[in-house]
Amino acid sequence: MEILSLQRNNNTKKQNIMPQISEKGKSMPQSPIRKLVPYAEEAKRKGRKIYHLNIGQPDIPTPENAMNALRNTPVKVVEYSHSAGNESYRRKLAEYYRNIDINVDHTEIIITAGGSEAILFGLMSCLNPGDEVIVPEPFYANYNGFTVTAGVKIVPVTSCIENGFALPPVAELEKLINPKTKGIIICNPNNPTGYLYSREEVEQLGEIVKKHDLYLFSDEVYREFCYDGNTHFSVMHIKGAEENVVLVDSISKRYSACGVRIGALVSKNSEVMATAMKFAQARLSPPSLGQIVGEAALDVPQDYFNEMEDEYTGRRNLMVEALNNMEGVVCPVPRGAFYATVKLPVDDTDKFSQWLLSDFEHNNETVMLAPASGFYSTPGYGKQEVRIAYVLNKDDLKKAMECLELALKKYPGRTV
Amino acid sequence: MEILSLQRNNNTKKQNIMPQISEKGKSMPQSPIRKLVPYAEEAKRKGRKIYHLNIGQPDIPTPENAMNALRNTPVKVVEYSHSAGNESYRRKLAEYYRNIDINVDHTEIIITAGGSEAILFGLMSCLNPGDEVIVPEPFYANYNGFTVTAGVKIVPVTSCIENGFALPPVAELEKLINPKTKGIIICNPNNPTGYLYSREEVEQLGEIVKKHDLYLFSDEVYREFCYDGNTHFSVMHIKGAEENVVLVDSISKRYSACGVRIGALVSKNSEVMATAMKFAQARLSPPSLGQIVGEAALDVPQDYFNEMEDEYTGRRNLMVEALNNMEGVVCPVPRGAFYATVKLPVDDTDKFSQWLLSDFEHNNETVMLAPASGFYSTPGYGKQEVRIAYVLNKDDLKKAMECLELALKKYPGRTV
Repeated sequence: MEILSLQRNNNTKKQNIMPQISEKGKSMPQSPIRKLVPYAEEAKRKGRKIYHLNIGQPDIPTPENAMNALRNTPVKVVEYSHSAGNESYRRKLAEYYRNIDINVDHTEIIITAGGSEAILFGLMSCLNPGDEVIVPEPFYANYNGFTVTAGVKIVPVTSCIENGFALPPVAELEKLINPKTKGIIICNPNNPTGYLYSREEVEQLGEIVKKHDLYLFSDEVYREFCYDGNTHFSVMHIKGAEENVVLVDSISKRYSACGVRIGALVSKNSEVMATAMKFAQARLSPPSLGQIVGEAALDVPQDYFNEMEDEYTGRRNLMVEALNNMEGVVCPVPRGAFYATVKLPVDDTDKFSQWLLSDFEHNNETVMLAPASGFYSTPGYGKQEVRIAYVLNKDDLKKAMECLELALKKYPGRTV
Repeated sequence: MEILSLQRNNNTKKQNIMPQISEKGKSMPQSPIRKLVPYAEEAKRKGRKIYHLNIGQPDIPTPENAMNALRNTPVKVVEYSHSAGNESYRRKLAEYYRNIDINVDHTEIIITAGGSEAILFGLMSCLNPGDEVIVPEPFYANYNGFTVTAGVKIVPVTSCIENGFALPPVAELEKLINPKTKGIIICNPNNPTGYLYSREEVEQLGEIVKKHDLYLFSDEVYREFCYDGNTHFSVMHIKGAEENVVLVDSISKRYSACGVRIGALVSKNSEVMATAMKFAQARLSPPSLGQIVGEAALDVPQDYFNEMEDEYTGRRNLMVEALNNMEGVVCPVPRGAFYATVKLPVDDTDKFSQWLLSDFEHNNETVMLAPASGFYSTPGYGKQEVRIAYVLNKDDLKKAMECLELALKKYPGRTV
């Protein structure tokens, strides 16, 4: 009894001398793409080679002219830039947009620290805590983090592997709209499914947001990654939705420059831009060195993209074929981005992905996957799915597929 | 009548088809350091030279070895880094801290996009919307932006120009503590006042946060900028406050590299760090190129800082003397950072600062100041004060002072 009461005192004391973390902090999700990193680090310490299929980190070199611009920069003092980014860069970026029929000028662009900051500025500027956004699931998992940060609630509408993760019927989406609904978020081409929204689907979304007075946030960082002759239809191409549309962009994938942390928030809604600008001013400026890379990269010739398209098409074909040849695996053919959301014959992909790092090896190699549960908002969904990023060269990708095939045979929790 | 009712219809229609921006967005303050930028741009278009005393953008070159590390980087693909920053950089940074008696290891450091992101992660991790933080005013104006973003309320305790902006009596500060109070934010050496907190003051704050179970956020990005033989006493040096203290740091000023956007969040409170890490993962990683600069800069020899101290001491002396020689101007002697908050004999420094850009010139030159009202939380305070950053070389600073002296004589709203 005495010990118990002493313990209670200690506990009380411990609580008193330790300030508590925030509720928001408690509800922040761990990144499903990054939460397994400690297991990967442990495996690497053991000398194991890991094929990273978990993260959209392409192995394609950053364009040489962009790296040269950085290497030859005359800059002596790395100064703050304009809070919206260098004007020269924004003017050139506006030109890039006009070339793809997106009619914006440099005042309608704010350069951000990656697409991440762009979506955060967008949400913060447009939505109040407690407001709702509708998002087709599975969705880019970090939207969870950004909406928790902004105090906004994600209302998912589920897309299905059976029809390749197409946009769910608009009627289903419309049923979810209530007075708290303030926006819709899409990612097109889609991360994590690789689905490319059709012009009709995007225009349908345009009709909904106009009808219900909502914002349409569109994350189009994979715009250049469309395969099989398909073309990209941007939300910025929707007629008459200029006040509703907020575009999130990034050069991370386009120029294989994830680490520069350069993105952009683009909108013709001047009130949104003026508001986002206040958030931009508070953090002073986007990375100056990344802007050098970003501005120079705009001169990259079309060949760069043609080669990239060929390369990724080859990788995709290799992966899709390998996966669909594995017993019990289902992989729809992605038409854009460089991801597929794949169904695996296992009990729980969280467990399987951890097991791959902790308990499995083949020739001292293994594979890292992103369990799909973190890409769903509906509890329990995605437990048999993973996101695979086909960002490795074909040789590595082939070896990764061999590893995965073998692992699926050995995994104690397999379901076939 | 018909016209009026038509207009009303149009207005109603306009409201209907335009989604509204957020309340948070509306209450975001404009940066007092940057809000005059459009007037400066206009003046520059007219060919006018502007001495920028408004922004803490030093003219000292970024260390050459750091720029060379960037120029010679073997990196071919600019990849994401670890969400907490490169381990090699964090390990070396921990060594830097240990050299100044701050006992942390690399797991107690998260590299951030500038000090801005560090303070945002700190606030988000530790405070709930509606919670209060006590901040001695005048304070770094962007704290307003960060607290609005986090939904937190700043409760100011006013420091006075009469005693050089020293920490107000602890009793005054303690009176403000209520159940909603969760933390205290200080900036030491102080931006915007240049005040350097004494060991006693910092230890008093330590006692308060321990007694009342609060977080103590300390922004120490000007740590190396202490003059007249004074040394810096960090909150990390307080005994027994390890769970309370959250350090915000940045290399922007230390290595004159504001544009690299590299800062750090440092704490021995593992729960705070684990929580901040989730925010860090959501935005993927801090800028990779900036980390190259940051890591190399740690090898800068002590000479760099000695020369910088000499240089800034000279600039400060020049500025303080010039200002105090102007009729009606009061400038306390700052002992740290590179700012002074200065009282001017004018009706309203917001108007005066705008007038300097729009209506004044001397040999086609003028001066840009940061009106101090934006550095105060108490309405109406700071209307006669400005923040001056002495970040220009002595020749320019001298010319800027001449400009200012003349302008004070010509300004229609002068009070002497």
